[in-house]
Amino acid sequence: MLLIISGPSGSGKGTVTKKLLPSQGYALSISMTTRQKRPEERNGTDYFFCTPEEFHTVRDADGLLEHATFSGNYYGTPVSYVNQQINEGRTVVLEIDVIGALQVKSKYPEAVLVFLMPPTFRELRHRLECRGTEDEDEIERRFRRAWDEVAMLPKYDYLVINDAIDQAVEDINLIVSAERLKPRRSSGKINHFHDNINGM
Amino acid sequence: MLLIISGPSGSGKGTVTKKLLPSQGYALSISMTTRQKRPEERNGTDYFFCTPEEFHTVRDADGLLEHATFSGNYYGTPVSYVNQQINEGRTVVLEIDVIGALQVKSKYPEAVLVFLMPPTFRELRHRLECRGTEDEDEIERRFRRAWDEVAMLPKYDYLVINDAIDQAVEDINLIVSAERLKPRRSSGKINHFHDNINGM
Repeated sequence: MLLIISGPSGSGKGTVTKKLLPSQGYALSISMTTRQKRPEERNGTDYFFCTPEEFHTVRDADGLLEHATFSGNYYGTPVSYVNQQINEGRTVVLEIDVIGALQVKSKYPEAVLVFLMPPTFRELRHRLECRGTEDEDEIERRFRRAWDEVAMLPKYDYLVINDAIDQAVEDINLIVSAERLKPRRSSGKINHFHDNINGM
Repeated sequence: MLLIISGPSGSGKGTVTKKLLPSQGYALSISMTTRQKRPEERNGTDYFFCTPEEFHTVRDADGLLEHATFSGNYYGTPVSYVNQQINEGRTVVLEIDVIGALQVKSKYPEAVLVFLMPPTFRELRHRLECRGTEDEDEIERRFRRAWDEVAMLPKYDYLVINDAIDQAVEDINLIVSAERLKPRRSSGKINHFHDNINGM
């Protein structure tokens, strides 16, 4: 299963994803990027580092679930890595902004979209201010964008209110457990029925 | 939310529903019927007892989610009772055969359909034989019908394997909890966002 954790800037996507990952059966999606590798980063763990030509080859072959440009560098989610992890039975977690999440859903309709949001907009603003990584103009921009992002909520599969982080992680685990009971994810169980009847 | 517990004869729908109901927030759907009231039965608890004329009036006004005839008596699920319970915040549980379940889903698309099935067809047959309420011909008929019913599985929202009953009940509780996180069922939470922003 491909699980997308999304929501406005300041909703706590990163923190929730970090808390979720050590649970059994989760694997983080790894992005391709043309950005320079930093000394502490490892290729194939933090990112798949590549040249712009390699990036375009994969993108043009429809090999990316979504892609975007930040500060002149390309970033994208390679579908091959996601599929490989899913085939090995893992739930792949993709933490991504709202625009990217909706791009992925259109290419990968079986993806499970989770919208993360603090209990109030007031709290969202508070979290943006407290982390101190953006200046006032950028905080204002992100806060205003959050309104448009919340309007996308009906396109999501689930809404998780990130008030207490442990409760949010528990809600997401619950969603994954329930999604595993969808008929399309339980063909193994059905074959099991058939094996047994044939063996009668 | 309307929760439909369905599956082949012998799958354990009745037992699972009985175990589920004492949990908080569940209410059993009550059928309308033209069958004679038995002395121990109470109108409005076991059934809504009615005349054939009353039944037809409700049915013709599109007031039944599904209806069927058994031994010359009419049975149907009145939508008014379901809606009343849902408006009071309850999860209405409807235990019904596969044909009825699909009828309800077509009239009430938000209904959550759970398909219940023992781990194997062999076990299904065993359960049908052990309860001793049907003769051999009827057991054979129900067993054969189960094959067609399992083919309807892709139309269901969830598959719950009824191996151990407590696990099946737990799976259903988990499904209900996850369904409550669907955006269409969390408009209250969204208003909460807006109230709070307006109050800033």
